[in-house]
Amino acid sequence: MWAEDVASRSLGMELVTAAPGSAVVRMTVRDDMINGHDVAHGGYLFLLADSAFACACNGHGPVTLAAGADITFVAPVKRGDVLEARASERVRFGRSGVYDVTVLRGEEIVAEFRGRSRMTTQRRPDEGR
Amino acid sequence: MWAEDVASRSLGMELVTAAPGSAVVRMTVRDDMINGHDVAHGGYLFLLADSAFACACNGHGPVTLAAGADITFVAPVKRGDVLEARASERVRFGRSGVYDVTVLRGEEIVAEFRGRSRMTTQRRPDEGR
Amino acid sequence: MWAEDVASRSLGMELVTAAPGSAVVRMTVRDDMINGHDVAHGGYLFLLADSAFACACNGHGPVTLAAGADITFVAPVKRGDVLEARASERVRFGRSGVYDVTVLRGEEIVAEFRGRSRMTTQRRPDEGR
Amino acid sequence: MWAEDVASRSLGMELVTAAPGSAVVRMTVRDDMINGHDVAHGGYLFLLADSAFACACNGHGPVTLAAGADITFVAPVKRGDVLEARASERVRFGRSGVYDVTVLRGEEIVAEFRGRSRMTTQRRPDEGR
Repeated sequence: MWAEDVASRSLGMELVTAAPGSAVVRMTVRDDMINGHDVAHGGYLFLLADSAFACACNGHGPVTLAAGADITFVAPVKRGDVLEARASERVRFGRSGVYDVTVLRGEEIVAEFRGRSRMTTQRRPDEGR
Repeated sequence: MWAEDVASRSLGMELVTAAPGSAVVRMTVRDDMINGHDVAHGGYLFLLADSAFACACNGHGPVTLAAGADITFVAPVKRGDVLEARASERVRFGRSGVYDVTVLRGEEIVAEFRGRSRMTTQRRPDEGR
Repeated sequence: MWAEDVASRSLGMELVTAAPGSAVVRMTVRDDMINGHDVAHGGYLFLLADSAFACACNGHGPVTLAAGADITFVAPVKRGDVLEARASERVRFGRSGVYDVTVLRGEEIVAEFRGRSRMTTQRRPDEGR
Repeated sequence: MWAEDVASRSLGMELVTAAPGSAVVRMTVRDDMINGHDVAHGGYLFLLADSAFACACNGHGPVTLAAGADITFVAPVKRGDVLEARASERVRFGRSGVYDVTVLRGEEIVAEFRGRSRMTTQRRPDEGR
């Protein structure tokens, strides 16, 4: 899935680790991610967290989509900052799941994200071969 | 603020209308916004909604930042889709505010976003001249 | 459904209006709803909003449950305050829905709630007779 | 604060443990907490989680209020069920904080709650004596 995720790769994201229910993704804040207040657009922090969330919840196998998510912005982020999103599964039930993603700059938390996942009944193209 | 928002402009976003408490922003889904499931990365829908939210809550004057936001993904979005985010203020209290942003493809809702704003005590560079 | 909702009725809630996708529920803040800060426990505002949400999303017919919800507390509420929760549907898609509930004291907003609904495949006991 | 929290005590809640940033609160689902679908009204799960959240965020000293919260309902709860809400601090920044509360029935998760706190500038009545 990551290999085909043009969106994440074109932002320079790097998949550090991935396992069923957890993932770590890294990204450096680029000039084109800066908003009108001269800090990183919060949407890019969301994007990074959302990518880590997608890797974590798809690690179980079945195609799983984000049903929704909430983010709290903790600290402003500047150009050049190296950010790391660490996703972990909180709970799964039926076809749903809740995942927490903490976005860090070094050891400092810059955002807290909570994603709600929904497993589809769709099979992966590479499954069952 | 929009003029200096490199992040929003580099994604090809267009500010359609803006007033204190409301804004409409438009964006076309590009190839580099597609994820590993061959639909638009949800993070780009968030980014679009977040930009409309920022315009709406900063329309009152004082520098106002996103404290957080929640998004529900309603329908998958494809490359080439033209999306419109319509932000409107729900309530303001003290230095806080709640804004709703609906993301549409034509008349069809594809995402519902709710942003929580926080006014800073910072003055704009161009204020008070 | 309302007739059998012991929880809502034992709190003195009154169903003012109900239609498919919308509902208004009223409640007076009682002494036993006051917390350690001498204002109404936020949980009771949630409960009121949640009841209006349940009426709105079940008005369509099929048994529909709350999958989750977010609340923002806008103003403190005191004992004796008469609160009104007004629920309206924002969007429905598949078996899911998003509903907004505004909690008011007179014309003043005291809380903003957004509920996420999920329709079950269960039939009502009184359906199809 | 707990001693004066009429709302929590009148619901039969028991404060199991409390420390700065964490708390455990227990409650048994009563007949009057059952809704029209014959399960516990989700509002009571919120109330329980919110009480644990209040204890955790007020454990630091300054009067701290809930600014808002999100809850995901994981499993239905029945009358007589003994529920335990375990609150822990995720991050504090400025006068804000994010707290996670898991609501359990034995070892089974029935709800996941995330609270957003806001410290007031108000002193406690018993401070500084």
